[in-house]
Amino acid sequence: MVYFNSDYMVGAHPEVLARLIETNAAHTVGYGDDEYTARARELILRRCEIPSGNVFFMVGGTQTNAVVIDRLTDRNDGVIAAETAHIAVHEAGAIELTGHKVLTLPDPEGKLRADAIDRYMSTFYSDETNPHMVRPAIVYLSFPTELGLLYSKQELEDIYNVCRRWNMLLYIDGARMAYGLASPANDLELSDIARLCDAFYIGGTKCGALFGEAVVTRRPELFNRFISLMKMHGALLAKGRLLGVQFETLFESDLYERIGRHAVDMALKLREIFTARGYRAVYDSPTNQQFFQLPNDVVERLKAGASFELWGAPGPSASTVRFVTDWATTSATLDTLATLLQPLSH
Amino acid sequence: MVYFNSDYMVGAHPEVLARLIETNAAHTVGYGDDEYTARARELILRRCEIPSGNVFFMVGGTQTNAVVIDRLTDRNDGVIAAETAHIAVHEAGAIELTGHKVLTLPDPEGKLRADAIDRYMSTFYSDETNPHMVRPAIVYLSFPTELGLLYSKQELEDIYNVCRRWNMLLYIDGARMAYGLASPANDLELSDIARLCDAFYIGGTKCGALFGEAVVTRRPELFNRFISLMKMHGALLAKGRLLGVQFETLFESDLYERIGRHAVDMALKLREIFTARGYRAVYDSPTNQQFFQLPNDVVERLKAGASFELWGAPGPSASTVRFVTDWATTSATLDTLATLLQPLSH
Amino acid sequence: MVYFNSDYMVGAHPEVLARLIETNAAHTVGYGDDEYTARARELILRRCEIPSGNVFFMVGGTQTNAVVIDRLTDRNDGVIAAETAHIAVHEAGAIELTGHKVLTLPDPEGKLRADAIDRYMSTFYSDETNPHMVRPAIVYLSFPTELGLLYSKQELEDIYNVCRRWNMLLYIDGARMAYGLASPANDLELSDIARLCDAFYIGGTKCGALFGEAVVTRRPELFNRFISLMKMHGALLAKGRLLGVQFETLFESDLYERIGRHAVDMALKLREIFTARGYRAVYDSPTNQQFFQLPNDVVERLKAGASFELWGAPGPSASTVRFVTDWATTSATLDTLATLLQPLSH
Amino acid sequence: MVYFNSDYMVGAHPEVLARLIETNAAHTVGYGDDEYTARARELILRRCEIPSGNVFFMVGGTQTNAVVIDRLTDRNDGVIAAETAHIAVHEAGAIELTGHKVLTLPDPEGKLRADAIDRYMSTFYSDETNPHMVRPAIVYLSFPTELGLLYSKQELEDIYNVCRRWNMLLYIDGARMAYGLASPANDLELSDIARLCDAFYIGGTKCGALFGEAVVTRRPELFNRFISLMKMHGALLAKGRLLGVQFETLFESDLYERIGRHAVDMALKLREIFTARGYRAVYDSPTNQQFFQLPNDVVERLKAGASFELWGAPGPSASTVRFVTDWATTSATLDTLATLLQPLSH
Repeated sequence: MVYFNSDYMVGAHPEVLARLIETNAAHTVGYGDDEYTARARELILRRCEIPSGNVFFMVGGTQTNAVVIDRLTDRNDGVIAAETAHIAVHEAGAIELTGHKVLTLPDPEGKLRADAIDRYMSTFYSDETNPHMVRPAIVYLSFPTELGLLYSKQELEDIYNVCRRWNMLLYIDGARMAYGLASPANDLELSDIARLCDAFYIGGTKCGALFGEAVVTRRPELFNRFISLMKMHGALLAKGRLLGVQFETLFESDLYERIGRHAVDMALKLREIFTARGYRAVYDSPTNQQFFQLPNDVVERLKAGASFELWGAPGPSASTVRFVTDWATTSATLDTLATLLQPLSH
Repeated sequence: MVYFNSDYMVGAHPEVLARLIETNAAHTVGYGDDEYTARARELILRRCEIPSGNVFFMVGGTQTNAVVIDRLTDRNDGVIAAETAHIAVHEAGAIELTGHKVLTLPDPEGKLRADAIDRYMSTFYSDETNPHMVRPAIVYLSFPTELGLLYSKQELEDIYNVCRRWNMLLYIDGARMAYGLASPANDLELSDIARLCDAFYIGGTKCGALFGEAVVTRRPELFNRFISLMKMHGALLAKGRLLGVQFETLFESDLYERIGRHAVDMALKLREIFTARGYRAVYDSPTNQQFFQLPNDVVERLKAGASFELWGAPGPSASTVRFVTDWATTSATLDTLATLLQPLSH
Repeated sequence: MVYFNSDYMVGAHPEVLARLIETNAAHTVGYGDDEYTARARELILRRCEIPSGNVFFMVGGTQTNAVVIDRLTDRNDGVIAAETAHIAVHEAGAIELTGHKVLTLPDPEGKLRADAIDRYMSTFYSDETNPHMVRPAIVYLSFPTELGLLYSKQELEDIYNVCRRWNMLLYIDGARMAYGLASPANDLELSDIARLCDAFYIGGTKCGALFGEAVVTRRPELFNRFISLMKMHGALLAKGRLLGVQFETLFESDLYERIGRHAVDMALKLREIFTARGYRAVYDSPTNQQFFQLPNDVVERLKAGASFELWGAPGPSASTVRFVTDWATTSATLDTLATLLQPLSH
Repeated sequence: MVYFNSDYMVGAHPEVLARLIETNAAHTVGYGDDEYTARARELILRRCEIPSGNVFFMVGGTQTNAVVIDRLTDRNDGVIAAETAHIAVHEAGAIELTGHKVLTLPDPEGKLRADAIDRYMSTFYSDETNPHMVRPAIVYLSFPTELGLLYSKQELEDIYNVCRRWNMLLYIDGARMAYGLASPANDLELSDIARLCDAFYIGGTKCGALFGEAVVTRRPELFNRFISLMKMHGALLAKGRLLGVQFETLFESDLYERIGRHAVDMALKLREIFTARGYRAVYDSPTNQQFFQLPNDVVERLKAGASFELWGAPGPSASTVRFVTDWATTSATLDTLATLLQPLSH
């Protein structure tokens, strides 16, 4: 069986695991005050070229989004997101748990557009009933998006400009950051991203870590008493050094890049396997998630040897499926997939 | 100057005021445990034909929606509403304050449709990521809607059937209930409404009271420790008898009906004044809110003698305006409006 | 029957009621943007000698405490209060509803002490686990306290100094402010109170209004988007002018003072009635609440002609009772009470 | 340097780590739907002798307490705990974040007493202002307590009986469960604990796991849609199998017991080292946390070779210190400590 359901199906990348093993017996203080964490912070800030910034480590993505958005908003503030945004659909109301409304904008391709945000804000501020409405205080976007797409440097600059015009913050969910950075279609570096938003997170869980996300900000003044807020959200890991050790490993060499490149490389080859056989890619994704429209009998027969996900409800004759690659996807995995597809298409 | 901005521009209907004056010096216990409140409850339950039901009184509509929805939902539940619903747009996040996501359905006319709810629910329950999503536990609708429209008995039955099929509760916001009940287009009585939902509220603030809303339910078992929850929300009035006195007055005679009929009568005459002059009614509202598309110069000149609201942003040459009637609107008021319109249209 | 249960058993003081009647038919915009409210604000600011301050009006005390404390705290902040504080005991968790812990200090007499607050804070800030604890960000006290006692000008200055030393705000609950100001034991004026805290509220509900509380602050910058927050809490009255009209009436003459003086005068006479007969006042209250220790048979026989409250659980042979006076208490009321006590004590 | 600061200073017990390495490359579905987690659940239920119960896995203790208490309470419910309880003091308001007040009872020894709970409840239910107060719906206790003490079987039975009498649930925080179970002073087995409460958690983080806590309940009907609630709290681990793998390892052999026994054995030897030298144990702890009163010069000199924590503020001449043991504490560690203490006491 070959697996393409998601990028959190296996443990840690071997190099990350090796470091966890190597440091297992060390004694450190808890809650992230250890030296591994300090070094991981240092490495990330250097890579992001924001020496006076700060980095905070949490365990998972929903948790990270909830705590960061709770910190960057005032009590009665909301967050603008695309209709398909993870925080709008798949976090079980984690943002609302602390009272923040997710204000969604329609998004044919699952991306926010600077002009749509601008229009929304000018309507909000010209409406006399504005005190009766939730104030949009922050914009949330995912890079890559939930559908595998990217924002170009220009698009991100435009969005950030709109945010600043309306006195909003910009926060970027980088759960799959490695795959965005490594994509041949990408023109952004980590340092660009750090510069073009107020805070973002570098995803570990889906990008080679056992678990963990690194929140990065060039504006530490926005993160007042943040460790305490993490604790209040149940998001402060006792053995915080586990996060430090992992991110130190990912960023002291080019490991994070390598993980991203490998998975994207595999994804583009996988795409070729499908399109060469005449199957349509549903979104033009240049990252590690690929979506195809497949005849239902092909879907059924593929299932015999491959594990993957239906995307939405199955159609009458054809369905959309998602294939995801990661560091553990190999050329052999793809060969198996190709073979599985072979007999099916004759 | 004649006023049409809203139905909360004046104090109480004279009969309600008279009773407040008459009872002002009486001593009663606080928090709604008094005899006026008991009698108001009794009268409303009788009118609704649900003798074993219960009634709770609060001060305003947003407060009422927030406390009732908080009670009828479990922690991680959401509420389905139309995109234009008051709770979705104009309550500043009062529903989200206690963690409940408002799940909006598109609504060309500002009304929920049974089949759209059904479709939403079957998608929700067939989606494998359902634990990652907010569970729709309750449906909210306004009668009349924010745009003055009504649900027919058949439409309400269909919606309630869908709710029961999916194990959801139905809650009706009756901020302008008097005007819905009194509309010639309406085929629902209070007893129908009480039967076709799990809870609803009878609006007082916009229907002749100084303030106050009466939450009615035929299922008191759903309202466990509700007085305490009201207190927790800051929604328990110390001199609770003020609410009892007002609703007793509204329901011991046909006063609530009279208030509704008068305002709807005025609204339909007002509509005639506009349409007779060739102005288009934007929504086909049979209740006390009327929306017209008016040339901007007409809007400007009307403003000299009439107070009313723009509905949304003004257009380049014409704009949508809202006119609202209530118990204090008189034939003389309408005559003044007609006169104002006269010179403007020649 | 004579009534002493509380100060919210009757309607509005006749002068307040008269003004509500007089203004009933006026048309105004909603939500407190009317002229009555503007004038009430002006009058209160003048009386408080803080022309650049601001005033906000809400309906009840618990609501007011919840919204103000929610505004003056950051997400993960708590509020210091006496163990007997209204917010700690009798608001059904309204402060916790939006996530703020009430940090209580022991208080033999129901009063906060500057040195106890100081000790608490120095312990908090010297504790290394401080990020794991709720930060005390605001101090809450009641003037008069729940037991009828007062803070002297010196005591209040000391407390406010401690607050500033530790970067905390001070908020005063003035539900019964009129009775504190009017007490012969009081050395504070409204302008002192306005100066010696960051925000406080002037109680209307218990001091002659039908309902309503006026939040006063000399630091309006602390109340960012406060109308919207009120809305979010369901605390923004649609017919906001009702609050304006009442407070305008209370403060355009010396009515608020007169109401306070009368009730305190009655309370001290009432106290004399009891103590002259040998019954002990439990707290040395110089305001409108009086607490006595009475033999249980006296309690029982008093109940025949007077309504009042037991304070806590009844004791085996004697119990503590509370008697409260207000504008509606008359000399005749006291005479009746004295007569009731007469035969009981021989 | 020898370390005694806490039981979360090192990584995982070697056997746990070995299993994580061994399973690292396996592909599983996410969010705890994998076979490792299923098997861990099965093993724990068998050990607890509640075959029809359920087990949920989370990452850390504060998170676990917050999500479980949020589930076991209604919106306006509070939780009774000892004044020194972790949820009352050291969770930064995580319980209040979702609106639940922590109602603390004084506790000279840091333990709840059945009769004190009973008294609190009878006062609550006999108080007429009860709707104005937070309803105690659940009792929280720690086993062992924050000070290392245990509840006997009789004490726990008494407390659970009081809970049932007042219709409250009982929830036990077992962050250090291994050390309680393994103590020579303990007379409770896991199956007793499972039977004598409604839910509890078996601590992994402090007892040999890399991280993780296992919530156990014999009443799964109380945990409606709990996975979704975990998601809402940001507490659902993507690679959920990491928790399953660890708890499977801890419970498929007697590893959890061995870890407990070893640390308690070390703790009691450590205690002997101190008391033999005349230093007083502050609490009579039979578990892995030991508290001593030490002269300040001893404290200072010990610091040269040992890492441990001051407990509270230092005193003028002597201070209280805490020493904690775990699976990584060895006889050699204790020898070093003894040696450090040697020259100090001559």
